Amino acid sequence: MKKDDKGYVQEIQDQEDDFSRWYIDVVRKADLADYFIVKGCMIIKPYGYALWENIQQALDRRIKETGHQNAYFPLFCPESLLQKEADHVEGFAPEVAWVTQGGEEPLEERLGIRPTSEAIICSTYAKWIRSYRDLPVLINQWANVVRWEKVTRLFLRTTEFLWQEGHTAHRTEEEAQEETLKMLNVYTEFAENVLAMPVLKGLKSDSEKFAGAQKTYCIEGLMKDGKALQAGTSHNLGQHFARVFDIKYLDEDQQEKYVWQTSWGVSTRLIGGVIMTHGDERGLRLPPSIAPYQIVIIPILVKKQREEVLAKVRELYDKMKDTFRVKLDDNDKFTPGWKFNEYEMKGVPLRIEVGPRDLQKDQMMVVRRDNGEKNSLPLANPEKQLGDLLEDIQQNMFKQALEFREKNPSRTENFEEFQKVMEEKRGFIYSPWCGKASCEEHIKDRTKATIRCIPFDQPSHDTSCIWCDEGDTRWVYFARAY
Amino acid sequence: MKKDDKGYVQEIQDQEDDFSRWYIDVVRKADLADYFIVKGCMIIKPYGYALWENIQQALDRRIKETGHQNAYFPLFCPESLLQKEADHVEGFAPEVAWVTQGGEEPLEERLGIRPTSEAIICSTYAKWIRSYRDLPVLINQWANVVRWEKVTRLFLRTTEFLWQEGHTAHRTEEEAQEETLKMLNVYTEFAENVLAMPVLKGLKSDSEKFAGAQKTYCIEGLMKDGKALQAGTSHNLGQHFARVFDIKYLDEDQQEKYVWQTSWGVSTRLIGGVIMTHGDERGLRLPPSIAPYQIVIIPILVKKQREEVLAKVRELYDKMKDTFRVKLDDNDKFTPGWKFNEYEMKGVPLRIEVGPRDLQKDQMMVVRRDNGEKNSLPLANPEKQLGDLLEDIQQNMFKQALEFREKNPSRTENFEEFQKVMEEKRGFIYSPWCGKASCEEHIKDRTKATIRCIPFDQPSHDTSCIWCDEGDTRWVYFARAY
Repeated sequence: MKKDDKGYVQEIQDQEDDFSRWYIDVVRKADLADYFIVKGCMIIKPYGYALWENIQQALDRRIKETGHQNAYFPLFCPESLLQKEADHVEGFAPEVAWVTQGGEEPLEERLGIRPTSEAIICSTYAKWIRSYRDLPVLINQWANVVRWEKVTRLFLRTTEFLWQEGHTAHRTEEEAQEETLKMLNVYTEFAENVLAMPVLKGLKSDSEKFAGAQKTYCIEGLMKDGKALQAGTSHNLGQHFARVFDIKYLDEDQQEKYVWQTSWGVSTRLIGGVIMTHGDERGLRLPPSIAPYQIVIIPILVKKQREEVLAKVRELYDKMKDTFRVKLDDNDKFTPGWKFNEYEMKGVPLRIEVGPRDLQKDQMMVVRRDNGEKNSLPLANPEKQLGDLLEDIQQNMFKQALEFREKNPSRTENFEEFQKVMEEKRGFIYSPWCGKASCEEHIKDRTKATIRCIPFDQPSHDTSCIWCDEGDTRWVYFARAY
Repeated sequence: MKKDDKGYVQEIQDQEDDFSRWYIDVVRKADLADYFIVKGCMIIKPYGYALWENIQQALDRRIKETGHQNAYFPLFCPESLLQKEADHVEGFAPEVAWVTQGGEEPLEERLGIRPTSEAIICSTYAKWIRSYRDLPVLINQWANVVRWEKVTRLFLRTTEFLWQEGHTAHRTEEEAQEETLKMLNVYTEFAENVLAMPVLKGLKSDSEKFAGAQKTYCIEGLMKDGKALQAGTSHNLGQHFARVFDIKYLDEDQQEKYVWQTSWGVSTRLIGGVIMTHGDERGLRLPPSIAPYQIVIIPILVKKQREEVLAKVRELYDKMKDTFRVKLDDNDKFTPGWKFNEYEMKGVPLRIEVGPRDLQKDQMMVVRRDNGEKNSLPLANPEKQLGDLLEDIQQNMFKQALEFREKNPSRTENFEEFQKVMEEKRGFIYSPWCGKASCEEHIKDRTKATIRCIPFDQPSHDTSCIWCDEGDTRWVYFARAY
């Protein structure tokens, strides 16, 4: 337990001392989530869930604007269905929770709780899709999924989590590839503009791709401890699932053909990403676009002019509440100082303070959470200026995170240097790799770093693999990752 | 398969011939939902899910406006937790799906998949609530739940369904009762104004109350086959759960006290209620407030003036799309007649037709789904008139449903007449009941009718029970029910 310079108990660990502990402290103290008595299961508390609702809303709009519709598929996947696609079952079977009893009766076949819904949805598409006229099928669902994880961490890896999963079926290979990249770009734009989280995007190496996919693309953010976080994935499934689930359509040329498919998803893990991208020694910092409260108004209540101050902040609240997500905390149980601390912990982007002296000057004090700057604004019609401030905070948080990532860009063809960077400052390392899984494995064994993505733009000159010295390399981003 | 008077194949059963068949036909033909290979599990298709999203949005706003916050609690409930409240486990244990294996390991304790979340949430509240300052706790969650049902029907009773469940904790008995009734009233207003579904509200008899509740209140709609549908429930849980889960708070007087609780919920069953309240021989009829498309625009495309008509409907669509949920169907694969049929089946409240002759007269034809009325409206700036029409449809659908319920109001103190009504025209029967469960049981055995609710307003004069002739009666609504 430590105290800050004003003497308030912060009760969160220093980031540099123990980042994991800092993370858990922030999740708890900012009232985002809690563990449940079932191992690895998480309770998302109201403040954390409001954050998720804002994330959902912003992403759902983008998913719909790109032509997708939401639907809902069942929670249960019969074992025989899950086993159809060989790679898929190999990847997911070890993590499936099995229902073996329904009410009083033992089940004839075990039902897996969806770890992801490819098998459930593909078996359905096989019934729905008949003709080329039925294509493309562009469906998304918001749902809970379960993966029996051995090591869990709130938001980042939990037994049950919430996510969206898009599942599309197309007439041609090109169209499926186009969709895969379209959604990767939607995720990129969303991460950067809404979550203020800069991401690298690219292809996964084979060892990191989704079980059953032909290609997996991803976005990767950099957390404040120098570790990467996979924030979203978009898979080109090729015809792998179409062949085993027999999803065929009659084409215009009267030939029966297999469809081409994609799937893509992001989850409540994004909340973990937001915390670790933006959080600081005082707790959470939230981008205004997803903050449950963008502004908190705190009256400074002393005996003098108490009623006038209260009346003024209530008036202010009423004027602002249709424009911003705003909270008025005129609760008497806590001091203003305690409240400043509390809402800083909760990451509220702007704090407005109004006291007797402000009233005299017809102004209010506005404090930014992103950089601590204080500004006086007139009490009359501050909406425009507050809107501009929030917009500036959103931009600045992205800029700060980008600067953090770019502070010490690492690019090396030398493995010793690679090891040194990975020990000391971490971050992404841009290095050449020959494409062999064995080299990837050796590097991981020695440095704990994995290939996070193979970026689309590749330098034209050839060089040699950072591990085996062989040629025909691509330049990739390595990092230690969550 | 039957044809309507225009010769289009409708492929839905007549309501009077076989209402159950009609219901399933409408669900399927209007593309709302489908069965999955796991018994009793439902796939909610995009059109059905869009309906659910609109229902969610309208109700979620009301839940938040009454001071509640959303959160998310885990899917799994350990067996020992579920067994704590005796009535609760007796009511739900026969319907629980049990997880016995997580990944490769058999579990030490079986995990139930939540059939409802009282046990999960109460065990959490026991940790969260310490002081009277923590009260009230006003939380809601949107989630999937599982009940292992023997007989299932799409939307009305499915193994897995979607719902919201509110769970609140209060300092006093009065406050909990006030909350219980407040949410009953929210449900009533929502059912009537949003779903256009008139409901009766009141208290459940003990035999119909929620397992573990002290009192259950409900809203009951009347379906077109004369059967009632329980559309929402609000429970006063008293201190039943607080005592077994040990949810105590330190009151201002320094005494430890148990909290008073409520829970309340509505589910995807409401979609079934909307179908059976409003549907007719041509399919679904949707209230404008929840219709995925409030308006469909269908161009009448003949060779003459084809491009002019297309240009005009696209212009119309662009002008309307920010004001209404509108769909332009300018697809060439189907005839206008086929489309009229299709969107009537899907229950779209307003259809706009624009053809070459309309263009000449600078008008469009507008057809109402609720009563078939056709109106000509000017092509220029029709927004205001369309808005008024939609509002009128919303009102009229409620009026029609109310008139259906009130057409033959049944009120009797005579059991023979009761039996006759229940055989012939059904609907609600308002009759006196002494309060004994045995009388209720006898009546159910002979007529299949159950007490749907005990209304709040009771006549002051006493009479004798419709079954046993004993006095001290209350007047209640009986009906056969889903």
